[in-house]
Amino acid sequence: MHQAIGEKHWIIPDGFIPPASAPGAYESHESICVLNCASEEARLTITIFFEDRDPLENIAYVVPGRRTKHIRTSSLSANGASIPVGVPYAIEVLSDVPVIVQYSRLDATQAENALMSVVAYPIK
Amino acid sequence: MHQAIGEKHWIIPDGFIPPASAPGAYESHESICVLNCASEEARLTITIFFEDRDPLENIAYVVPGRRTKHIRTSSLSANGASIPVGVPYAIEVLSDVPVIVQYSRLDATQAENALMSVVAYPIK
Amino acid sequence: MHQAIGEKHWIIPDGFIPPASAPGAYESHESICVLNCASEEARLTITIFFEDRDPLENIAYVVPGRRTKHIRTSSLSANGASIPVGVPYAIEVLSDVPVIVQYSRLDATQAENALMSVVAYPIK
Amino acid sequence: MHQAIGEKHWIIPDGFIPPASAPGAYESHESICVLNCASEEARLTITIFFEDRDPLENIAYVVPGRRTKHIRTSSLSANGASIPVGVPYAIEVLSDVPVIVQYSRLDATQAENALMSVVAYPIK
Repeated sequence: MHQAIGEKHWIIPDGFIPPASAPGAYESHESICVLNCASEEARLTITIFFEDRDPLENIAYVVPGRRTKHIRTSSLSANGASIPVGVPYAIEVLSDVPVIVQYSRLDATQAENALMSVVAYPIK
Repeated sequence: MHQAIGEKHWIIPDGFIPPASAPGAYESHESICVLNCASEEARLTITIFFEDRDPLENIAYVVPGRRTKHIRTSSLSANGASIPVGVPYAIEVLSDVPVIVQYSRLDATQAENALMSVVAYPIK
Repeated sequence: MHQAIGEKHWIIPDGFIPPASAPGAYESHESICVLNCASEEARLTITIFFEDRDPLENIAYVVPGRRTKHIRTSSLSANGASIPVGVPYAIEVLSDVPVIVQYSRLDATQAENALMSVVAYPIK
Repeated sequence: MHQAIGEKHWIIPDGFIPPASAPGAYESHESICVLNCASEEARLTITIFFEDRDPLENIAYVVPGRRTKHIRTSSLSANGASIPVGVPYAIEVLSDVPVIVQYSRLDATQAENALMSVVAYPIK
């Protein structure tokens, strides 16, 4: 049995799905990258906060034991609602077992790409 | 009622507003991205430090409860003074309730964009 | 004698080796950058986690005392297996003495480059 | 009197001065960005670690009180020695009073720029 490591609560204040992609090898996207070192699965509950409307709550996602998942934010939805492109938002990730979370964005709005990445902020 | 999470004091040592933008989809800009998970509003007090002159102090900003704000640094001002473009500076964010702060810069000086981002440093 | 500083256990959730490079000055690559401030050498044990298969375990690497090593992830292997290009993965670094770990990626898939970097997440 | 905040010891494992710049608005460079919130000056002592030779030690730098300094690593020297371009290195910053340290790199090797930034790792 492998033990869980990390934290159960993580925050990413700067989310943004670029609205357009130039033709080329890549499509603009963002990923929430989660590592679950434990043998048991991790059940995530994700909340999306906006500037001018109520949060999108209770998005569920499962990361199997001893696996990583790089989750495209554009694939997330709850009750038929998903994250609109081109608007600023923020992300809260809760997990039932400790995990480690990183956020990366690839912006392919222009022909050449731009990359950014942060380790999410852990709430202890 | 949702509880506040994060910290009340955050630092970003590397601020810089690129002086020019190439024609295209984006304009160069920087954002201080703040998430307020609490039900109550967060009142921010921002200080801007420079290399060769006294700080620009007491810039006020409000983030409503359960909202994020991605604040353009070029929009900040205090007593008629704002942050000049093309000079190095640093940012201190104080909040009356705990929040989480990230800083991102998009540099569109060239035709193609460059991105960088950091979670601000929390003072505990 | 110089004392070891940092931590013995570090996590990087977002690993990805870009599958292609455009002609130019750079080749796409990722580096795990390790600083060993101690006089004695640091023996690393690296584990690579995937989305859909068992981890690649027990990759060994030595960082001499008072030296840094910027380790190309494409150079790592264990029992003849290495990290495939173009698939999401995550990295765990264990060290027998405290070190400090940063991860950087240069993506040269397009003619112009994109860069990202994070300090790894320390497990204390 | 303003109080010092932050830490006295910071580490950046991934340093690299790009050897060439394409013609354009920017020159490739790296900066160690330091914020000194205290009224008194901060005296820094910087050490540069390499992959295959002894460290470059005892580089001195002063950050005045209530000021930030964005220090170009190419400008640093000790006993006539400076950091060579195009080789991997790592940075240790010691300060006599608490400060906050961030590291950013602009790579202008290609016509278009790439940016990366991390808050340095604090040793507590």
